[in-house]
Amino acid sequence: MGENIGMVARAMANFSLADLRLVAPRDGWPNEKARATASRADHVIDAARVFDTVEAAIADLRFVYATTARPREGYKPVRGPDEACATLRARSAAGQPTGILFGRERFGLSNEEVGLADEIVTFPVDPTFASLNIAQAVLLMSYEWTRAGRDADAGPRFSAPEAPPAPKDDLHRFFTHLESTLDEASYFHPPEKRDVLVANLRTMLTKAGFTEPEVRTLRGVLKALDYRMAKETR
Amino acid sequence: MGENIGMVARAMANFSLADLRLVAPRDGWPNEKARATASRADHVIDAARVFDTVEAAIADLRFVYATTARPREGYKPVRGPDEACATLRARSAAGQPTGILFGRERFGLSNEEVGLADEIVTFPVDPTFASLNIAQAVLLMSYEWTRAGRDADAGPRFSAPEAPPAPKDDLHRFFTHLESTLDEASYFHPPEKRDVLVANLRTMLTKAGFTEPEVRTLRGVLKALDYRMAKETR
Repeated sequence: MGENIGMVARAMANFSLADLRLVAPRDGWPNEKARATASRADHVIDAARVFDTVEAAIADLRFVYATTARPREGYKPVRGPDEACATLRARSAAGQPTGILFGRERFGLSNEEVGLADEIVTFPVDPTFASLNIAQAVLLMSYEWTRAGRDADAGPRFSAPEAPPAPKDDLHRFFTHLESTLDEASYFHPPEKRDVLVANLRTMLTKAGFTEPEVRTLRGVLKALDYRMAKETR
Repeated sequence: MGENIGMVARAMANFSLADLRLVAPRDGWPNEKARATASRADHVIDAARVFDTVEAAIADLRFVYATTARPREGYKPVRGPDEACATLRARSAAGQPTGILFGRERFGLSNEEVGLADEIVTFPVDPTFASLNIAQAVLLMSYEWTRAGRDADAGPRFSAPEAPPAPKDDLHRFFTHLESTLDEASYFHPPEKRDVLVANLRTMLTKAGFTEPEVRTLRGVLKALDYRMAKETR
């Protein structure tokens, strides 16, 4: 809804954040209701970029959090907003473009979308009354981002990992390549389990935080396998 | 406005707060719009008490913060939300009833009202874009109250589902399997570089910290590839 986007822009602007990316907004874009609700946060609305898919929206990023209402156990590391923002600040200071995924107003992020993120951030809300809307979730993360910046200024508490993860775009191309190689090898059976198997593989291989050279190495491995399989078929 | 009161109740309920005190609400009380906007926070709405004056509303409290959009200099001590909530937690733990004053949606608290508080709390918002509504201010303070409680407990913070990595033995068997599959696919060339390539692969796949089920999945992938290559050779 345009109103939600406007409220999100306004929450961001309060804490000096301005890089808003929208994935397939329901009511199209630009949206006059978004602008009206944004109050004076026109600069955020004007600079917002629209993407067809979550993959495209995060393609240039190297570390991404997914926000979820409840921890989804045994899935990916789950952090609080403060830990997450400390990590984002440290990676950002190390020159790594980072981002936070927020889900739809009514049903959040799908498992596939969460699967694209490196870690999960969840809010310490009362489990018997969890009712944050998207603009409130954005507000809390924006506030923590500012707070983490102040803490970081106070001294280098967190050190960023040395080798930066590959851009998501590279990683996604590797996934697509892997899945096509595995299709060729008839790995996915029965076919109706393909989605689940793909999601599992993507999750575990995202967790690994592979660097650009590492993703290149993996692509090389796949090429050798592809070549071997093609040769046998000819 | 009833809607603002409802959103405030909802923000509080997310963080298990329930003692809402209203001073001379514009549209009277009870208010159906407040209840509708509160979502499921009926218990906060039902327990809300109405007072004619701020003095009466805080009469039984022993320490009160006033929230203001901008620090009013030279006036009273000005704290950030984190400092303020640490203070409120400490006083509360010492048995002192405490409270936080929030102003009207459009023009906040009057100087007289701020004068009734012990200290001021203000939000670290961008000075060029300060536009928090009352429910957002309540949300941030409620969040900090929860956060300060957790810090005070100094117990386990957000616990991540840290699934233990697979036993090294499993991992090494996977390595051996992978390398034999890659030998079969003629990946290692020239042969004198095999040791270096093997070491690189082992390093990056060790770094990933795969769990036992993940290693099993990877073994399944290799089996599918082996089978596919063997079939072609037969």
